[in-house]
Amino acid sequence: MSAQTNPLIDDGLIEFLLYDVLNAESLCELEGYEHHSRETFDLFLDSVRRLARHDLLPTYKPMDEELPEFRDGRIVTHPSLPHLWRKMVEVGVLTGTRPEAVGGQQIPMLVHMMATAYLMAANLSAYGYIGLTLGAAHLIEAFGSDEVKERFMAPMYEGEWTGTMALTEPHAGSSLADITTTAAPTEDGYYLIKGSKIFISGADHDVTENVVNLALARIEGAPSGTKGISLFAVPRLRPENGELVSNDVTVAGLIHKIGWRGLPSLALEFGDVGDCRGWLVGEPHQGLRYMFQMMNEARIMIGVNGAATASAAYHEARTYALERKQGRRLGDRGADQVPIVEHADVRRMLLRQKAIVEGSFALLGTAARYADVANRGPESERERAHLLLDLLTPIAKTFPAERGFEANALAIQVHGGYGYTSEYLPEAYMRDQKLNTLHEGTSGIQSMDLLGRKVVAKGGAPLRALAEEIALAVTEARAAGCDAELCDAVEQATDRVVSITMELGQRGMAGDTDGMLGHSWDYLDMMATLVVAWQWLRMAAAARTRFKDEPTQQARLHGTEAAAQYWIRTEVPRISVLAELCRTAEDSYLKAQPDWF
Amino acid sequence: MSAQTNPLIDDGLIEFLLYDVLNAESLCELEGYEHHSRETFDLFLDSVRRLARHDLLPTYKPMDEELPEFRDGRIVTHPSLPHLWRKMVEVGVLTGTRPEAVGGQQIPMLVHMMATAYLMAANLSAYGYIGLTLGAAHLIEAFGSDEVKERFMAPMYEGEWTGTMALTEPHAGSSLADITTTAAPTEDGYYLIKGSKIFISGADHDVTENVVNLALARIEGAPSGTKGISLFAVPRLRPENGELVSNDVTVAGLIHKIGWRGLPSLALEFGDVGDCRGWLVGEPHQGLRYMFQMMNEARIMIGVNGAATASAAYHEARTYALERKQGRRLGDRGADQVPIVEHADVRRMLLRQKAIVEGSFALLGTAARYADVANRGPESERERAHLLLDLLTPIAKTFPAERGFEANALAIQVHGGYGYTSEYLPEAYMRDQKLNTLHEGTSGIQSMDLLGRKVVAKGGAPLRALAEEIALAVTEARAAGCDAELCDAVEQATDRVVSITMELGQRGMAGDTDGMLGHSWDYLDMMATLVVAWQWLRMAAAARTRFKDEPTQQARLHGTEAAAQYWIRTEVPRISVLAELCRTAEDSYLKAQPDWF
Repeated sequence: MSAQTNPLIDDGLIEFLLYDVLNAESLCELEGYEHHSRETFDLFLDSVRRLARHDLLPTYKPMDEELPEFRDGRIVTHPSLPHLWRKMVEVGVLTGTRPEAVGGQQIPMLVHMMATAYLMAANLSAYGYIGLTLGAAHLIEAFGSDEVKERFMAPMYEGEWTGTMALTEPHAGSSLADITTTAAPTEDGYYLIKGSKIFISGADHDVTENVVNLALARIEGAPSGTKGISLFAVPRLRPENGELVSNDVTVAGLIHKIGWRGLPSLALEFGDVGDCRGWLVGEPHQGLRYMFQMMNEARIMIGVNGAATASAAYHEARTYALERKQGRRLGDRGADQVPIVEHADVRRMLLRQKAIVEGSFALLGTAARYADVANRGPESERERAHLLLDLLTPIAKTFPAERGFEANALAIQVHGGYGYTSEYLPEAYMRDQKLNTLHEGTSGIQSMDLLGRKVVAKGGAPLRALAEEIALAVTEARAAGCDAELCDAVEQATDRVVSITMELGQRGMAGDTDGMLGHSWDYLDMMATLVVAWQWLRMAAAARTRFKDEPTQQARLHGTEAAAQYWIRTEVPRISVLAELCRTAEDSYLKAQPDWF
Repeated sequence: MSAQTNPLIDDGLIEFLLYDVLNAESLCELEGYEHHSRETFDLFLDSVRRLARHDLLPTYKPMDEELPEFRDGRIVTHPSLPHLWRKMVEVGVLTGTRPEAVGGQQIPMLVHMMATAYLMAANLSAYGYIGLTLGAAHLIEAFGSDEVKERFMAPMYEGEWTGTMALTEPHAGSSLADITTTAAPTEDGYYLIKGSKIFISGADHDVTENVVNLALARIEGAPSGTKGISLFAVPRLRPENGELVSNDVTVAGLIHKIGWRGLPSLALEFGDVGDCRGWLVGEPHQGLRYMFQMMNEARIMIGVNGAATASAAYHEARTYALERKQGRRLGDRGADQVPIVEHADVRRMLLRQKAIVEGSFALLGTAARYADVANRGPESERERAHLLLDLLTPIAKTFPAERGFEANALAIQVHGGYGYTSEYLPEAYMRDQKLNTLHEGTSGIQSMDLLGRKVVAKGGAPLRALAEEIALAVTEARAAGCDAELCDAVEQATDRVVSITMELGQRGMAGDTDGMLGHSWDYLDMMATLVVAWQWLRMAAAARTRFKDEPTQQARLHGTEAAAQYWIRTEVPRISVLAELCRTAEDSYLKAQPDWF
């Protein structure tokens, strides 16, 4: 299969999720979305899809092979990027979700997510410039002064400049409390920034003329730890007397990443010659709080990266399995060779990929819908939607990344020996995918966030809301005539998850931190298994309701039901194993000492 | 950590496995091993280890980066290879296990395996030339005529030429019944070979002057299917009048593999100009039978590749976690940053890697010991050892490859963002590892072999023998004072596996193939989980017996016990989930039609 014919994501799936499962049309009733309709959604989707397939995908492999170069202090990126950037800006994905007041189209997050997923599936690196710029500009939009907005947000939203998130430092990594970059106030309103950053994606390139780094730094004299960190806009070039002049931001090194190769990851030095200016965003010492308020969005985008990357690989594997002839059905020695999809183990690998990919998109869409309701829904629904969004975020970030990686490995396996070569695409998708378990908070950090903060917030309200949502889905699935065994299994698993969560929460309140959080990884795995089962039950119910009597949709109906059955019958039983590990607080690695390894 | 300081494999582990768990010294009582002793074993191990660390490891990264080239019809390989090849031949790994009659040292397989594992951990590609040559020469040793031995086996065992296995053809892949390469008899004793092969590792290079391809082909008029396939020695150059002349074996292409980059994988054409000569090995039409008789050895070697690759990555992660400081213990905000091994989730990832790596080596060592007894043990023990070896082979091949891949991904994860760069080694080990689930029979094929052939052979005798071995280990663990809960868990899991196997076997006998084999993947997963638990129980018992009163070995004792606890308490509970899937023959992917995907 050539890259050019890969659909990237199944259009029918997206249509089904948007309109049959997640009721996207009803979002048009929310404040600010009134000018939208299914027609405007579909127009947006179609134009983004076309861009993904016709422009982004053909550049994917070249961009993976022709790496960025570090030359004379600057980074030279792939020559196709300026064109792709302009096309993406033109089609409206950069400001799609933003308010009209800042030049946006006020498209629901849900619809924007499903559209941009195609761009990610086509070329993660190219879309990365959009994602980073949107994140940086949105931070300024939310917290910056009018002057900072005018100076830095506006050119980003206009697609003139790109943005970055400059958080990580060489010695600190995930531990943001330990950053040491400093900011010295001046009398001219700006600060002088000094320090080193690492893993800053897109901090230099030749896609646009300038880059705005949203950087964390400590104002001199600030309190230590997380409470003394402020947020600054630190451009590569600063506007001065109508021109852009150097702002003393130096590229110290180009990191050789194993994937996302069109988007350079850099080590930066701020203030090598003492002339790096930063403009404070919002109030001093609030930098981490600002960042974390935007974190849901960034983490969910990583989840979409994961689902999209797994989807592109799944479609490669699917087409290969349908076309490649090898072997025979068991006990059928004399016959011609059959397409490998006829072998049960190949079907197992495909159905597992399908369950992971489509389950991820449903979960992500559900989270995006809660975000829309939290932002623009009726006042009475906002808090509940926000709690559910907060609860689902670490799962929606981690599940597509971790299981997506597994799905990517299966796509290689379906290709046999050919999958082990760079003549085929799956190995590149697998390399791309691995980043998603690391950036924007590693999987381990997500699991601590889920169990240590999210499920126990507000006296357990998010968990209760989730249990109600799942109960509702079970009721609807029963009404739609779904397999009762599957409904029962999800219902029982929910009870098990609720009861173990309450037990763990009680331990935490009693001060037994290890007893509560020791198996947070297994807890995340368990919770993810459950919420994906919930999604599959919803999809099975919607498919039955919608397609039962439609002759042309029988394959979609049966495929959805088979994947729902697969997930609920093969994965949900693991929930009791994982709950038991949480309950017993099995202590092998908790007690392990460094010299035991 | 620099590559040069990675121990690759823990020497203490190997010593413990050989002498405390697997009683390698007792092998010196077997026929043909009488000239050996712990001293000769240790001398061999030490010299191979040294070679691995001092010569092979420093070339690993260069060989991954500087790829073989296809130039003027020949393959140019890495310049360090001829030196490494000679060193490996000199240290005796090529003929280590072979009889003195063919120039070998008659070292037990068990000891040879543990020694060569270091070479694989240091540089899989470089060792690959040894593994392939040994496999090819051994095939001729076992089945070839004296003339063929003299002509082709002798120069291989002398290290003058290398060998390959030339099985796969472009259209056939795993389906060997479909190969179409032909062999036309001539009056001069040789055959004229014509056909295409693909994925032939090491079929051309500049390491030695010649290569002998052990190729499968059909003699004209042979029966169709697997019963008409013969085995030929098809050298790149053939000896003629005291010189080596071209044998019409052409390199048609160099495959761009994502790992094992020092060992080129090639597409070959035999007989482009009608002058490719092959010499029949053994009897006509017996090629597949011969191959399969050598398959155990090859498959177990892949398992060692897997364990070794996971081990090298584990040691990178272990050292990184001990040295890299980041963050603090929970609730300890004011303190200095701590090494990341202090974080529970990092310890989880390390302990999981340790459980997989060391469990794999124990399993592989157990299989190798059965091979030694099967070959040279008392007549009364041989058959039982052979059955156990046959049963364990698909597991010993697949578990280290599949779980080793997971361990390799965890080694990246422990490194955080740095793990995603080619500045660190784990990403390369992960690429290397992926091949092991594909070559020498994919994981899916191994699972069919295990359930469809191995466990049900001879009326279930292998399964009964395995259950006896596990029962013995449980008894010994209880006597050594191991945790009773762990002993009970392994005992109960064994009962569950035996009973579900009998049920599946009955279905097979009743003709219900899908009901028997539909979940063969889950069956393999279940069986692997059990046999690795068995190994961990043996290791825990041996560690208690051996180290309980040794003050300097307390860390090893506790580390072994923690890993045993981890595996048995976190993985063994999955056995009942997997058994239930086998029992119910959950049919989601069995019934799935091609258009459902």
